[in-house]
Amino acid sequence: MAELPETPLLDTVNTPEELRKLPPEQLRQLADELRQETISAVGSTGGHLGSGLGVVELTTAIHYVFDTPRDRLVWDVGHQCYPHKILTGRRDRIRTLRQGGGLSGFTKRSESEYDPFGAAHSSTSISAALGFAVANKLAGTPGRGIAVIGDGSMSAGMAYEAMNNAEQAGNRLVVILNDNDMSIAPPVGGLSAYLSRIVSSREFLGVRDILRKFARRLPRPFYAAARKTDEFARGMTMGGTLFEELGFYYVGPIDGHNLDHLIPVLENVRDAEEGPILVHVVTKKGKGYGPAEAAADKYHGVQKFDVITGAQAKAPPGPPQYQNVFGDALIKEGERDPTIVAITAAMPSGTGVDRFAKAFPDRAFDVGIAEQHAVTFAAGLAAQGMRPFCAIYSTFLQRAYDQVVHDVAIQNLPVRFAIDRAGLVGADGATHAGSFDVTYLATLPNFVVMAAADEAELVHMTHTAALHDSGPIALRYPRGNGVGVDLPEVPQRLEIGKGRIVREGKTVAILSLGTRLEEALKAAEVLEAKGLSTTVADLRFAKPLDEALIRRLLTTHEVAVTIEENAVGGFGAHVLTLASDEGLIDGGLKLRTMRLPDVFQDQDKPEKQYAEAGLDADHIVQTVLKTLRHNSTEVTEGARA
Amino acid sequence: MAELPETPLLDTVNTPEELRKLPPEQLRQLADELRQETISAVGSTGGHLGSGLGVVELTTAIHYVFDTPRDRLVWDVGHQCYPHKILTGRRDRIRTLRQGGGLSGFTKRSESEYDPFGAAHSSTSISAALGFAVANKLAGTPGRGIAVIGDGSMSAGMAYEAMNNAEQAGNRLVVILNDNDMSIAPPVGGLSAYLSRIVSSREFLGVRDILRKFARRLPRPFYAAARKTDEFARGMTMGGTLFEELGFYYVGPIDGHNLDHLIPVLENVRDAEEGPILVHVVTKKGKGYGPAEAAADKYHGVQKFDVITGAQAKAPPGPPQYQNVFGDALIKEGERDPTIVAITAAMPSGTGVDRFAKAFPDRAFDVGIAEQHAVTFAAGLAAQGMRPFCAIYSTFLQRAYDQVVHDVAIQNLPVRFAIDRAGLVGADGATHAGSFDVTYLATLPNFVVMAAADEAELVHMTHTAALHDSGPIALRYPRGNGVGVDLPEVPQRLEIGKGRIVREGKTVAILSLGTRLEEALKAAEVLEAKGLSTTVADLRFAKPLDEALIRRLLTTHEVAVTIEENAVGGFGAHVLTLASDEGLIDGGLKLRTMRLPDVFQDQDKPEKQYAEAGLDADHIVQTVLKTLRHNSTEVTEGARA
Repeated sequence: MAELPETPLLDTVNTPEELRKLPPEQLRQLADELRQETISAVGSTGGHLGSGLGVVELTTAIHYVFDTPRDRLVWDVGHQCYPHKILTGRRDRIRTLRQGGGLSGFTKRSESEYDPFGAAHSSTSISAALGFAVANKLAGTPGRGIAVIGDGSMSAGMAYEAMNNAEQAGNRLVVILNDNDMSIAPPVGGLSAYLSRIVSSREFLGVRDILRKFARRLPRPFYAAARKTDEFARGMTMGGTLFEELGFYYVGPIDGHNLDHLIPVLENVRDAEEGPILVHVVTKKGKGYGPAEAAADKYHGVQKFDVITGAQAKAPPGPPQYQNVFGDALIKEGERDPTIVAITAAMPSGTGVDRFAKAFPDRAFDVGIAEQHAVTFAAGLAAQGMRPFCAIYSTFLQRAYDQVVHDVAIQNLPVRFAIDRAGLVGADGATHAGSFDVTYLATLPNFVVMAAADEAELVHMTHTAALHDSGPIALRYPRGNGVGVDLPEVPQRLEIGKGRIVREGKTVAILSLGTRLEEALKAAEVLEAKGLSTTVADLRFAKPLDEALIRRLLTTHEVAVTIEENAVGGFGAHVLTLASDEGLIDGGLKLRTMRLPDVFQDQDKPEKQYAEAGLDADHIVQTVLKTLRHNSTEVTEGARA
Repeated sequence: MAELPETPLLDTVNTPEELRKLPPEQLRQLADELRQETISAVGSTGGHLGSGLGVVELTTAIHYVFDTPRDRLVWDVGHQCYPHKILTGRRDRIRTLRQGGGLSGFTKRSESEYDPFGAAHSSTSISAALGFAVANKLAGTPGRGIAVIGDGSMSAGMAYEAMNNAEQAGNRLVVILNDNDMSIAPPVGGLSAYLSRIVSSREFLGVRDILRKFARRLPRPFYAAARKTDEFARGMTMGGTLFEELGFYYVGPIDGHNLDHLIPVLENVRDAEEGPILVHVVTKKGKGYGPAEAAADKYHGVQKFDVITGAQAKAPPGPPQYQNVFGDALIKEGERDPTIVAITAAMPSGTGVDRFAKAFPDRAFDVGIAEQHAVTFAAGLAAQGMRPFCAIYSTFLQRAYDQVVHDVAIQNLPVRFAIDRAGLVGADGATHAGSFDVTYLATLPNFVVMAAADEAELVHMTHTAALHDSGPIALRYPRGNGVGVDLPEVPQRLEIGKGRIVREGKTVAILSLGTRLEEALKAAEVLEAKGLSTTVADLRFAKPLDEALIRRLLTTHEVAVTIEENAVGGFGAHVLTLASDEGLIDGGLKLRTMRLPDVFQDQDKPEKQYAEAGLDADHIVQTVLKTLRHNSTEVTEGARA
């Protein structure tokens, strides 16, 4: 265990109420101690570090100036909230971050009244803060909505939709734009360039500027009438025109690490009688920790590390990560076919698209946090003869569902969806789980939906998708490392809608979709040892189903179970529907579907999560045995077969 | 049949190629004839009129100036494309618009090479046009992407996401902002106010301005170096700063009905060597047709009408529309409970929220075309103690799926979703069908999903949702008129997860969810006449299922069918999953699920669509009889019960 930092002042501050009792001249020391505590905590747990370090002063200043928790503070994404958690009564559990049973790595309503709105996906904060502001306005109760949102999150459409609606909240809405010119990857797009122009073209506001600006721009009632005239409105323009055009008062840019500037600015914002106000704060990701500042990703997400050296714990050597297997497989397809292009929404390294981009810089597109645009842009590319791979995590593809339906599926355009982080994802918890994509995609006409059982299958499926020109096709695969099978020298083109038998038996059939195959094979060994001859099939396709194979398996085995890393309504439901459509259930069919349970599961190690979900080898065995033992006369009493 | 207009010039122009052979001085006449033909056609079919009339000159000018179909023209939403269809070889079928087997009321790839990208949902055009532009750039082939997008559509986040990414396309991307200060409802939001300020603060560009502006702002290579400097870029700013900040060259505003201005502007845009360019065109919805110009909604969507008088065919008197039943029911809830608030995304009258807004102006929110924001804003309101009803069509709720999952379901916030246009929708066709919501919502933990069987049920469900504070709840109901049952004086609070028996029988059980109940009852009569005693149950809840009722129905009847207005993976799949989980299928169970087929169905009358889908009384009877006759030994051969 590393030595804990000395934090004499922080030790006296457990809540924002206590923070607000400090004299302003002690805040610098408090922030310094808060930074050391954050570094120490993340050193012991791993997690998101750079973003939190960038907002240490901002966190301190917000809680010092505003009346939290009455003022509702919403951190966009929420991965920068570790200092906030330390200051809001959760310091005692801060070294349980992202562990099973511990604190979430994001904000979470059930953890604290200081987390009025949970997050993890980006760009929701302004909408939520607006909801808080308007609710208080309607109820006539005090309380603002305060959103803290990064420049990367500002590129997503929903942030713009919210800004476009913000005017109604007046001074009850405060948006703090935390501009660190960096989300997970380097910034892209017009908005980012615009923010850079603002920051590069002028000095940070000093205290005198601030007072002058507020006097002119956020008038007390005396000026209110004049302000409404068009001329006055034009005169206000000082550079944040994009935000001003949408109805905000723009204040900035402010040095986000200078408490002597932050505090008076936020006090003025707090006391302003008009709004909504956008405060443009410039911070440095990783601020105050040398190894983070020096790293290209600013220690966005880290393993446990040595606080002195910054050296991160190395993952034990193992099979390659799925994302990289995909990236490398896509490069091979790209070499073969110049129309293959790749699209990522701000996740180049997380999706392996960074590798493809290195090989084919002109054919890789990082559109920023903009999944909706990513999908329809891909549809446009496909309509003009390109073969796009849209690489988006399962959970984030939810944000482009309408585009998947309306622009891709209805038009039957051959967009390839490489769906990473399918199934349970470990430390990121419920918000990042990819639990629903089989359900929400396989219900769509025209779609082909595949799930890779291992990294070799992923290579085959990437190839299959590349060659599939007749409509949309999706391949899903999990977070993390492969299972260690050899990667194929030459990828196979899989026949659409055909599964494979992995082991042949006679009594029990396990129909697996995706990477539960490993557990299915383990279960088969156990069942075999109990004298139950077991077939294991990797169905590969949730849509179209391999109807012939399923029919054969269901009708030639005594009991069958399906298993998938997806919630109800997916693969198992489609197998049941087939069995019903064809009348296979009429005469009796011992078929069970194993799927994710109907709850949102908190973070834990993936294998623990799957055990909790009842989707490991043990549970397969139990399900089979229980089904075999099931006294069918009892529950089907009265049914006439 | 009304007299057809005289269109001697238009009669000679069947394609844009032919249009481009006309001398410019004939374009005015052509546009006039095109307008008359559009009015005449829609008079005979009904459909969208105002939007098309607003873009008659723009349609003419675009096809005259640009090299369609090589230049890819993408109409946002597409309901303004009737003049475009007339000019692109589809005039012979223009009087089949929105009819079964006829032309789609939107753009559609399968109809014409001049429709390179279909639409119907808003705000997709810039992303798609960017895809076309980039694909051509990569392939080294000529061809631009041209998006025509209304000011209302610009409020949606995905338009902003696309603009934020547009710079890469250079002069291959042209965005024409069709600003008619009106989408379906009056405009809302910061962007709309901004556009109004531009238009009200200056004159339309004249030809001389245009030439001067282009000379200065869209330089030939000679100026290219200078332009890149920051100073020059700043000097360019002439008022479209919001777009310029995002990387566009802004040109405008232009009078969109003045061909003498439109043609030279578009020629300059076509020949510009830099880009992307945004042309701000100001039009009047309903332009050139008196009754449309005079109407509040500018004849956005009309019934068949008399061209001379503008009088629309009146719908035959009938039961009230579901949307209005909902709106009125919500008013009653609002009278009872001051925390009830309503949110619509630019569909106040379509959702009935206009009625609630009239009763409670402060408690109704039209957020514009911004479904993502609508849902998270509602989540914020709910987190602060309000009881929000988010009224969104089924198909448009797809655009907020991630917000439904991440902000509502995971946080278990009591947001009420009033889901109109569930199931097949008639003339609007596949893009507007609400086919998937049961599937994509019922797979989510914490959700309650209801479907109303008739308008009285809708009243009960509105009340039930209003009182349901423990988590998210959705109620779905169809487009159009109720079935004519009496509306309850006092709404009932339904027990969550409890269905009802509508008629009791012994042999056949029909488990209905939603408004197929009427067909189920008709089928029951037919079955009864054939000697098959039939139970019909209205399950009311797709989630949680009424497990006790389902268990009883399945085990006490000889055959059971489920029916729903939703695709695979929904209610029927959940019933099958229950039957499998509980082992009810082990001993044999004659259960079938009737659902929407696995195709996207084109427009037609709803009853024809449902017949085609196999979801009417006839098909229920056939399914029951076929299932009863089914020789179960044949297909389950080898299965050991």
